[in-house]
Amino acid sequence: MEYSLVKSADLKSMSVAELNDYATFLREKIINITKKNGGHLASNLGAVELTIALHYVFDMPFDKVVWDVGHQTYAHKLITGRSELMENLRTDSGASGFPSNKESEYDPFITGHSGTSLSMALGLARARSLNGTNEKIVAVVGDGAFTSGEIYEALNDLGDRPTPMIIVLNDNKMSISPNVGAMSKYFNKLRVNKDFVGLKSDFKTDLNGLPFVGKPLVKALTGVKNKIKQGIVGNKFFEHFGLKYYGPYDGHIISDIISALELAKASDKPVIIHLLTEKGHGFKDAELHPDAYHGISPDGERSEKSMSEVAGSTLCELGASENIAVITAAMTDGLKFNEFAKRFPNRFFDVAIAEQHAVSFCAGLAKGGVRPFFGVYSTFLQRGFDQVLHDVCLNDLPVTFLIDRAGAVGADGITHQGIFDLSYLSLIPNLIIASPKDGAELKELIKFSLKVNHPMAIRYAKSYDSEFLAHDEVKLGKWEVFTCGDFPVTVLAVGRTNEIAVKIKNANIVNARFIKPLDFELLDTLHGTVITLEDNILHGGFGEAVKNYLYGKCKVITVGHKNEFCDIRNIKKTFIDSGLTCENIQKMVNNELYLLENKQKV
Amino acid sequence: MEYSLVKSADLKSMSVAELNDYATFLREKIINITKKNGGHLASNLGAVELTIALHYVFDMPFDKVVWDVGHQTYAHKLITGRSELMENLRTDSGASGFPSNKESEYDPFITGHSGTSLSMALGLARARSLNGTNEKIVAVVGDGAFTSGEIYEALNDLGDRPTPMIIVLNDNKMSISPNVGAMSKYFNKLRVNKDFVGLKSDFKTDLNGLPFVGKPLVKALTGVKNKIKQGIVGNKFFEHFGLKYYGPYDGHIISDIISALELAKASDKPVIIHLLTEKGHGFKDAELHPDAYHGISPDGERSEKSMSEVAGSTLCELGASENIAVITAAMTDGLKFNEFAKRFPNRFFDVAIAEQHAVSFCAGLAKGGVRPFFGVYSTFLQRGFDQVLHDVCLNDLPVTFLIDRAGAVGADGITHQGIFDLSYLSLIPNLIIASPKDGAELKELIKFSLKVNHPMAIRYAKSYDSEFLAHDEVKLGKWEVFTCGDFPVTVLAVGRTNEIAVKIKNANIVNARFIKPLDFELLDTLHGTVITLEDNILHGGFGEAVKNYLYGKCKVITVGHKNEFCDIRNIKKTFIDSGLTCENIQKMVNNELYLLENKQKV
Repeated sequence: MEYSLVKSADLKSMSVAELNDYATFLREKIINITKKNGGHLASNLGAVELTIALHYVFDMPFDKVVWDVGHQTYAHKLITGRSELMENLRTDSGASGFPSNKESEYDPFITGHSGTSLSMALGLARARSLNGTNEKIVAVVGDGAFTSGEIYEALNDLGDRPTPMIIVLNDNKMSISPNVGAMSKYFNKLRVNKDFVGLKSDFKTDLNGLPFVGKPLVKALTGVKNKIKQGIVGNKFFEHFGLKYYGPYDGHIISDIISALELAKASDKPVIIHLLTEKGHGFKDAELHPDAYHGISPDGERSEKSMSEVAGSTLCELGASENIAVITAAMTDGLKFNEFAKRFPNRFFDVAIAEQHAVSFCAGLAKGGVRPFFGVYSTFLQRGFDQVLHDVCLNDLPVTFLIDRAGAVGADGITHQGIFDLSYLSLIPNLIIASPKDGAELKELIKFSLKVNHPMAIRYAKSYDSEFLAHDEVKLGKWEVFTCGDFPVTVLAVGRTNEIAVKIKNANIVNARFIKPLDFELLDTLHGTVITLEDNILHGGFGEAVKNYLYGKCKVITVGHKNEFCDIRNIKKTFIDSGLTCENIQKMVNNELYLLENKQKV
Repeated sequence: MEYSLVKSADLKSMSVAELNDYATFLREKIINITKKNGGHLASNLGAVELTIALHYVFDMPFDKVVWDVGHQTYAHKLITGRSELMENLRTDSGASGFPSNKESEYDPFITGHSGTSLSMALGLARARSLNGTNEKIVAVVGDGAFTSGEIYEALNDLGDRPTPMIIVLNDNKMSISPNVGAMSKYFNKLRVNKDFVGLKSDFKTDLNGLPFVGKPLVKALTGVKNKIKQGIVGNKFFEHFGLKYYGPYDGHIISDIISALELAKASDKPVIIHLLTEKGHGFKDAELHPDAYHGISPDGERSEKSMSEVAGSTLCELGASENIAVITAAMTDGLKFNEFAKRFPNRFFDVAIAEQHAVSFCAGLAKGGVRPFFGVYSTFLQRGFDQVLHDVCLNDLPVTFLIDRAGAVGADGITHQGIFDLSYLSLIPNLIIASPKDGAELKELIKFSLKVNHPMAIRYAKSYDSEFLAHDEVKLGKWEVFTCGDFPVTVLAVGRTNEIAVKIKNANIVNARFIKPLDFELLDTLHGTVITLEDNILHGGFGEAVKNYLYGKCKVITVGHKNEFCDIRNIKKTFIDSGLTCENIQKMVNNELYLLENKQKV
């Protein structure tokens, strides 16, 4: 059989040898695709056998599998008729890097944030009970997601009213950064369990020889089920939540996984299957440096200047003399906080994938007299919205939020766009919001935030094109005027949209460094037409705040992203789609100048 | 000693008998205050002995105690110099019903939402380490808060890098509704532990006879410490998180609590002390019906018509014929969902204090073909912001959010205002938002939402003044025109502000039933001046959306709450403060009419 044509149902009639062969095929495919398009290589290599076993055991899409986060679904996509789309992975003509029900009925949901799968799967399972149907519901959760609070909320609910469903704990010993926390330590204990080691070797002998030719033969496994049961580790933790625990199993031995899943499938109780997998399994480079391969960039892609590196190095500089602390929720690498972590280990806190806790924890640090800098991706700070509002801003505590990956993010697509933060943060009282145009300004803003005795958010994209020549001193709520020719048209640009603004002719050009408070003094001097540029949705963002203030005084044109979820997987294309180009803005300026001139003539 | 003058430090020199007497005094005081002003009676009666013991053992405010949520701090407030303020509890001239660092240095934070205390206390504890100081840090957490995911995020972090701090688990067997969930079952197991029963009686004999006269005598307790240690229940669950567990203790025997806290204070590891308390302890009515006494209204206060009751009864009506489910996060009573819960137990899900899970769970139910109605207080839905955006709205799933306690909430004050929801929800794509003017319209909107295949939020206050006479049929994005005299001034009112609007003369009056989408067709017909009324902050709310749309076409005046945290504890006063009165709006209308007329004359 041509492996590239294999579909979910075909797996059921393949032998173990064929399944293993197929695993090798998928692995090579994934390596080639990610080399070309970038993406989450290591985690996907780790989930190949698990994915094959899931499709072998369950009747998808009738049975539903919810992948937590979903960055590890490349094999799943290849099995479910998306081979062609996968060739252009993470581009607008290809497959998304995350599950998408727009792509396939095999994906129940669009997902991309951590810790939600159990809740969603429990919803599916209880809907099934109400509907009186009998599909199986599976949630596949990484060990990293077990640091998200929402998982415990779901476990608590599941334990309250047990509903048959299967949780697969895909334990690869790390989320994005190596896992931290009590749960990680606990999983480690389970990993070194002697029963498992015994089971593993026994199993290889017993099962690897068995021919897997279709469903009926799975019954041949029944004989060895008792062996599997012997492998069960009495697991108090999961029992507290009313779960039946099986494991741990070697997550790279397809036959073992199949046996475990069959056991779980037959159960009328909620079950958790604990699999040990290796990120990057089968690819030497990735196995050795899974961190670096979590998300890789396409071969030969040139990096622009990194804002994240500026943030990291500025914090190192401050760390030497100031009473600060740096906090991350499992994003040390992406935020370029590694150096700070190394140099100031006692001032560095990776709290795992736990944005809620991270924010409240910062409130505590600030109250205790230490200045916290919480580095977080824009899309993930949404998880801590209530804590930003209630714990930090209501208490007016000096916490600095370093919001990275703000604005359009490109290849990660619809689930990771950082285009909402200006809107959801602007509405929060007491919060100061700023955005730098380049690295030097980011550095200045970080230092400035130390002097401010209030919460402050600094939002920036991953990278920027070029350093600007000069910088005004940073003053609270004061903007930076680049060009002031007393033109009747003024362009107010936020963050990286300044790269567009400075190329515009015949208009006053202003770097609107602070989104909140606005520079009211400057706004009061404006007349004619004002054009605002921002890398954020328009609703509730910078432009609308300006428009509100200037109501009746100036004509205000707001340029930013549409009030929609944006699935464009290329930053430049997103900017073009939103009219954020020099050409478009220059045309707007020219048009306004023309209109204003003609008006005067009349 | 005059008990009303007792201060924190005075407790340290009191005997057990005196402390017990003082507890009786506080209890009576709390009963009288809540009878007069309303408030959380039962939980406060349950925490009297614990509060006394905390002040006996710790040197506040040098040592810091963070109360989770903080609704149980009445005794603490009475001990910390706020007796006079407590006489006017929950009013603008008195004490807040929750901790407030504006009131007293004994309260490190303003709090009011669940599950944040561990995170904040951990921040204080780690700041202490960095500062090299030696204050003790205590978090007091109810068993209900242990259903909040954030607690587990904090436990996970604490377990990763153990930091000395003390967690007091104030286990009163219920949060607001009787606790649900696996953790509740687990705590129950601990409660019936025989070691505890033994410990309890032993302890009474040993300790009740001891004279407590000042710090030195505490040392006399050392002799019985071993006994306490024998009472330690091996507690695997908390051990997983690296915590040393002591308990359970009877939370109404002051001497026991003191001994336990002294043990904890001496430890250089994180410790959890498990206390069993009774909500309403010492007050017969409240002990028997703690639910009803969770929050009580002042004696003799007349209830207005209840929106919550309309929601509850409408859901009961739908439950008989439609494939719906009703979800709450521990607010069955407040939302008036009791009847639904009784009649349709298999369609009713109280998921405990777990808003994040509740929202993702709804996404699962909706995908599974069941229509979920998630009832939630406006202020608490903030906790599920990311899930509303990512799990429900990005997936465009038909979930109805019944957002109760929206707008100004009165006595609960600054931590519970529902004045942000129109702003944080309006920015989310795919979400429909509506607000009813009265009960009949709420009923219509709930029924209407069933026909809409998208996420929909219906926000309403707890109560309304009067039923309106007539109702237009509900159509998506269509407003209801009350008065259309073709006046040059139009008043657009949202939700309960219609009660103001309909009394206004010489203006077109429109019930802006949908906040999103707006009624663009109607907006296109407007001219002159438009005045918008909303029970929400102005930033990013209804009025600003209208203003944006009508930019350059009409003069738009937005009336709503200031873009600030609002600590006014009376709904009417909040409305007056925001200019939301008939008098003020009529004046605005008259003024606009005058201006428009004079303009025409020119």
